Amino acid sequence: MIIVLKPNISKRQEVAVLKEIRKLGYRPHVMRGVARIVIGAIGDERTHQSLETLMTWPQVENVMPVQRRYKLVSREAHPANSTIQVRNLVIGGKKLHVMAGPCSVETEKQLLKTAEVVKAAGATILRGGAFKPRTSPYEFQGLGEKGLKLLDKARKATGLAIITELLSEHHAEMVAEYTDIIQIGARNAQNFQLLIAAAKTGKPVLLKRGLSMKIEEWLLAGEYVLANENANLMFCERGIRTFETYTRNTLDLSTIPIIKQESHCPVVIDPSQGAGRADLVIAMCKGAVAMGADALLVEVHPNPAEAWSDGAQQLTPERFGKLMRELRPFIQAAGRE
Amino acid sequence: MIIVLKPNISKRQEVAVLKEIRKLGYRPHVMRGVARIVIGAIGDERTHQSLETLMTWPQVENVMPVQRRYKLVSREAHPANSTIQVRNLVIGGKKLHVMAGPCSVETEKQLLKTAEVVKAAGATILRGGAFKPRTSPYEFQGLGEKGLKLLDKARKATGLAIITELLSEHHAEMVAEYTDIIQIGARNAQNFQLLIAAAKTGKPVLLKRGLSMKIEEWLLAGEYVLANENANLMFCERGIRTFETYTRNTLDLSTIPIIKQESHCPVVIDPSQGAGRADLVIAMCKGAVAMGADALLVEVHPNPAEAWSDGAQQLTPERFGKLMRELRPFIQAAGRE
Amino acid sequence: MIIVLKPNISKRQEVAVLKEIRKLGYRPHVMRGVARIVIGAIGDERTHQSLETLMTWPQVENVMPVQRRYKLVSREAHPANSTIQVRNLVIGGKKLHVMAGPCSVETEKQLLKTAEVVKAAGATILRGGAFKPRTSPYEFQGLGEKGLKLLDKARKATGLAIITELLSEHHAEMVAEYTDIIQIGARNAQNFQLLIAAAKTGKPVLLKRGLSMKIEEWLLAGEYVLANENANLMFCERGIRTFETYTRNTLDLSTIPIIKQESHCPVVIDPSQGAGRADLVIAMCKGAVAMGADALLVEVHPNPAEAWSDGAQQLTPERFGKLMRELRPFIQAAGRE
Amino acid sequence: MIIVLKPNISKRQEVAVLKEIRKLGYRPHVMRGVARIVIGAIGDERTHQSLETLMTWPQVENVMPVQRRYKLVSREAHPANSTIQVRNLVIGGKKLHVMAGPCSVETEKQLLKTAEVVKAAGATILRGGAFKPRTSPYEFQGLGEKGLKLLDKARKATGLAIITELLSEHHAEMVAEYTDIIQIGARNAQNFQLLIAAAKTGKPVLLKRGLSMKIEEWLLAGEYVLANENANLMFCERGIRTFETYTRNTLDLSTIPIIKQESHCPVVIDPSQGAGRADLVIAMCKGAVAMGADALLVEVHPNPAEAWSDGAQQLTPERFGKLMRELRPFIQAAGRE
Repeated sequence: MIIVLKPNISKRQEVAVLKEIRKLGYRPHVMRGVARIVIGAIGDERTHQSLETLMTWPQVENVMPVQRRYKLVSREAHPANSTIQVRNLVIGGKKLHVMAGPCSVETEKQLLKTAEVVKAAGATILRGGAFKPRTSPYEFQGLGEKGLKLLDKARKATGLAIITELLSEHHAEMVAEYTDIIQIGARNAQNFQLLIAAAKTGKPVLLKRGLSMKIEEWLLAGEYVLANENANLMFCERGIRTFETYTRNTLDLSTIPIIKQESHCPVVIDPSQGAGRADLVIAMCKGAVAMGADALLVEVHPNPAEAWSDGAQQLTPERFGKLMRELRPFIQAAGRE
Repeated sequence: MIIVLKPNISKRQEVAVLKEIRKLGYRPHVMRGVARIVIGAIGDERTHQSLETLMTWPQVENVMPVQRRYKLVSREAHPANSTIQVRNLVIGGKKLHVMAGPCSVETEKQLLKTAEVVKAAGATILRGGAFKPRTSPYEFQGLGEKGLKLLDKARKATGLAIITELLSEHHAEMVAEYTDIIQIGARNAQNFQLLIAAAKTGKPVLLKRGLSMKIEEWLLAGEYVLANENANLMFCERGIRTFETYTRNTLDLSTIPIIKQESHCPVVIDPSQGAGRADLVIAMCKGAVAMGADALLVEVHPNPAEAWSDGAQQLTPERFGKLMRELRPFIQAAGRE
Repeated sequence: MIIVLKPNISKRQEVAVLKEIRKLGYRPHVMRGVARIVIGAIGDERTHQSLETLMTWPQVENVMPVQRRYKLVSREAHPANSTIQVRNLVIGGKKLHVMAGPCSVETEKQLLKTAEVVKAAGATILRGGAFKPRTSPYEFQGLGEKGLKLLDKARKATGLAIITELLSEHHAEMVAEYTDIIQIGARNAQNFQLLIAAAKTGKPVLLKRGLSMKIEEWLLAGEYVLANENANLMFCERGIRTFETYTRNTLDLSTIPIIKQESHCPVVIDPSQGAGRADLVIAMCKGAVAMGADALLVEVHPNPAEAWSDGAQQLTPERFGKLMRELRPFIQAAGRE
Repeated sequence: MIIVLKPNISKRQEVAVLKEIRKLGYRPHVMRGVARIVIGAIGDERTHQSLETLMTWPQVENVMPVQRRYKLVSREAHPANSTIQVRNLVIGGKKLHVMAGPCSVETEKQLLKTAEVVKAAGATILRGGAFKPRTSPYEFQGLGEKGLKLLDKARKATGLAIITELLSEHHAEMVAEYTDIIQIGARNAQNFQLLIAAAKTGKPVLLKRGLSMKIEEWLLAGEYVLANENANLMFCERGIRTFETYTRNTLDLSTIPIIKQESHCPVVIDPSQGAGRADLVIAMCKGAVAMGADALLVEVHPNPAEAWSDGAQQLTPERFGKLMRELRPFIQAAGRE
């Protein structure tokens, strides 16, 4: 921690700060600058109490942390890339995976048809929401366990692995029983109780970035998973909230090189939520692949205009086929399969 | 719903849209403008499926909702101000209430001392976190039930009512047993399962605004409480996330007249979270009172520099006393008690 | 400056950083912490070259400035409040001033009528745009010099002082000839050439906050005025751009105590631009007064629905009268006149 | 325009709105919905006065524009891609161009060396700032005309075309005399007087996106160039301001497909400003190429740590060579040269 004192304070005020720093377990180191006194507080910031509280003292101008606050998710702790085994697939390795399927599981027919077309086009994982977090209580909230059973049926019929969202601590075991990957949605990205419940199931966890989550906060939310003894974590960028209204969210593709730099965990990009508009999804997928994403999460629906949720951002099967064909040269250029 | 078609589309494309609108249960009404065809889709947007999915159609340029999506929280539904009975207090009436206390419940001594000083200065409700949502898993997570018991003790000792945060669906009943008001924090503002669990306890619910929640989304999150048969809802602004880094968040005081205009529920302002800096809290409280807030939520700690969480934003007892004295003329000017 | 080195770097890498710090004119001071080496670079950050460029070095993790970058606008440099003489008025003193008038100067009749009603209600300064920065080139761009002449006429008729916006370096002298205060708009808040041109006229300058300007950047933009030998600067908050769409901008009232803390210059609040909605202006003015604003800038138009620009945010004369009446108790509570 | 009336208004209030709509030159068309009355106002929104002012009327709930407000920049007006001739180069055609060079022109040696290395690596256009918009008045403000002369020298020595920023209306002719492309920076993106001055020189204009500019506003700022009879306009995304602090700005790569969809003008990506960190530039360039950018704008400096401005984001010549080599397969995959 670095503590910057205000200009022109008394010796007594300086000494009081030094005393408090020692009391909180750090060793103070004073530097007298041209305009201000700066104190380095030496000690492990992750195990000691924060000194940010010194900000309340009238003689203190600023308190600045020096260390990163995340440990287990950091590349410092684990220099090699992590890979995640999902049934017979490996995420985070040489192969780029595409997770595709409808926003919501609606009917057996809708789900099986989608599963078949996405598999035929090259997807390896089927997505579909059985529990849906909806902005309004009057919108379709998902089929619940019935939806999970349909996902299981689609898995048996096609061999695709399954990813679906967990919404409630009460459902953690039930969802884990059916799915291969547990998705934590953007609205729950700092619902730490849910993260702990998901981690404890032992299933791989895909953690979406919250709508206004700083990268450090996202990594720390991931830390909750690893700290609860589940090493199989993926980060999924899905767009952040900005002032722009042309797109539903602003997909922040710079997270790909940043997460790769800060962490060893795989990175997934969700351009459907990111754009909220099917017409932009193909270009965004190309960018994500070129920048090094390990997997894509794409919404596909047999008839988007009649989807029970978020129709505007779901691709038709035809457009999804086009996407998969057009992605090929970029996958090769990125040195992936 | 208003559907705007692209310029220069064929008759066949127009007819297809009209057909789909009818299929989804609305009655289409065509207006031919100078540059574009605009279709009004007549029907209740809250009970029919959304037409926003038409955005995926190549001939559609834009789809615009006409109705507000919230019902029970809206002033349209309930023109008079709602008031909430909390023990012998009424929130949303003529009296301005101040909820004050430490960020976290730490020790019996800390809590009781704070309770006494805030009561003496004029607060009517004691705040204190027993379950704390912390950005990092390595930070203090709260005393849990032990903290709730200390709050109960402080209530008995002082007669203050209690507000504390609910973090987990599993704790809803336990927290409701001890507290007078259940707080839903900013990170859980769209954790709809938690909102439902809180609503079902029957206790008054204070719903903080999420870090990047639009006002419409906030009202809709509140709708989850009222739709689960709990009419005792307060909205609490605590600052939104913006690009500014001088303050921790940007306290959006315009929410006071906006929520008053759109809804009948009381409005509470939390300047401690909003600023993240004790030195700005007094001015923000004055603004909140002048603009018509029904209550304030203020963090007070006997020794902020040694607080176990968020010390930088907690007031000392002396400063809290100063706040309460300086607020008086503004409370009078606002016609409150 | 504080330079944080990455963990596990070589001695040679450390020495290279120390050498560069010396080369750039600072004296390095090394602190060996638990996890990282931290270097304090001692020297005046405002007169030496920035060390932030060290961020490009592979062994450097972070570079953190210690000093504030503004000098002349800072309260450190000038502990007392500055006051600004505008004709026979003093801004920044005990009296709260209200600057009111139409968004655009349209006709002699419109302007004179508005001037009379705002004066009668208690305003002391007349606002009105002669040069208008419009998002689209097809919108009304202002009457230009003809508008300035109408403002002069209104001043002569009513005795009100005048504030109007400067848009182009070419117009600096012409605008200064007619106006009492030069307004720099939000879109030009970092148009430094225009700031310099405005400063050099010697007229008082009101600097609006840019749509996404951090407080530090705003103070530094103000520094351009004072550094060009014009001490008569006011800061005017008019709302920042956020994700919220209910209001046009988010009025950040916390800037009042913040600017008062960091600077000695007067603070003005513009709630009309801040909200973009006349129905919220009254509440926002009350908040601004309670929090210590020195002046308000309010748009008033005899018939807002027929205004040539920004009608939605202009008050009718009736509403302006109501505002001025309702403000009175808050002005008293704030200890102003 | 669509005007939504509030529920439960009187017939008289409805008639008043219809009368005003007619008075402002539109033909009203009434639709009676389930909950509200909606009025379509038929007429060209770009040539008539805006109806948004009706928002001030108590009986009006919302006013929604139907038409796009930009004309000349829109793809509707010009369905084919525009190309721009810059000396012997064509921007917006099959060839991807790289504009590279230092943030600021510092010395002849620095500039010529950079020009040679970027040319050798494949760049076709040399960038370099002679007039610099700096946040603080105490930072290096550029060499001015001397810098322009050095750029001219570098052009003669290498045959590279030149792009440099215009800061002041007073300099438009001087800058146009030396440069091949005029750059309008982010801080001046809504400095409409400067845009008009740049347009009138007849030189191609590269318009950076403002820090908090919505896409519609950016297109409308571009409209100022085309409406002043200069058809040679490029849009350049350089990152927007968001809550994230890990990067200096958030580079919004979705603007590539969006601008391509809405406009016929070429799109350029500036990842140096976007990230503010050299270590992220390579990945961002790959994404930009994959998504269809027409050109890249990259900062390169012989010794970034000693750069006179923005060192943290400038590439070394070695890293720039690596970038150009690694981009090749993506350029091919995108079907460019």
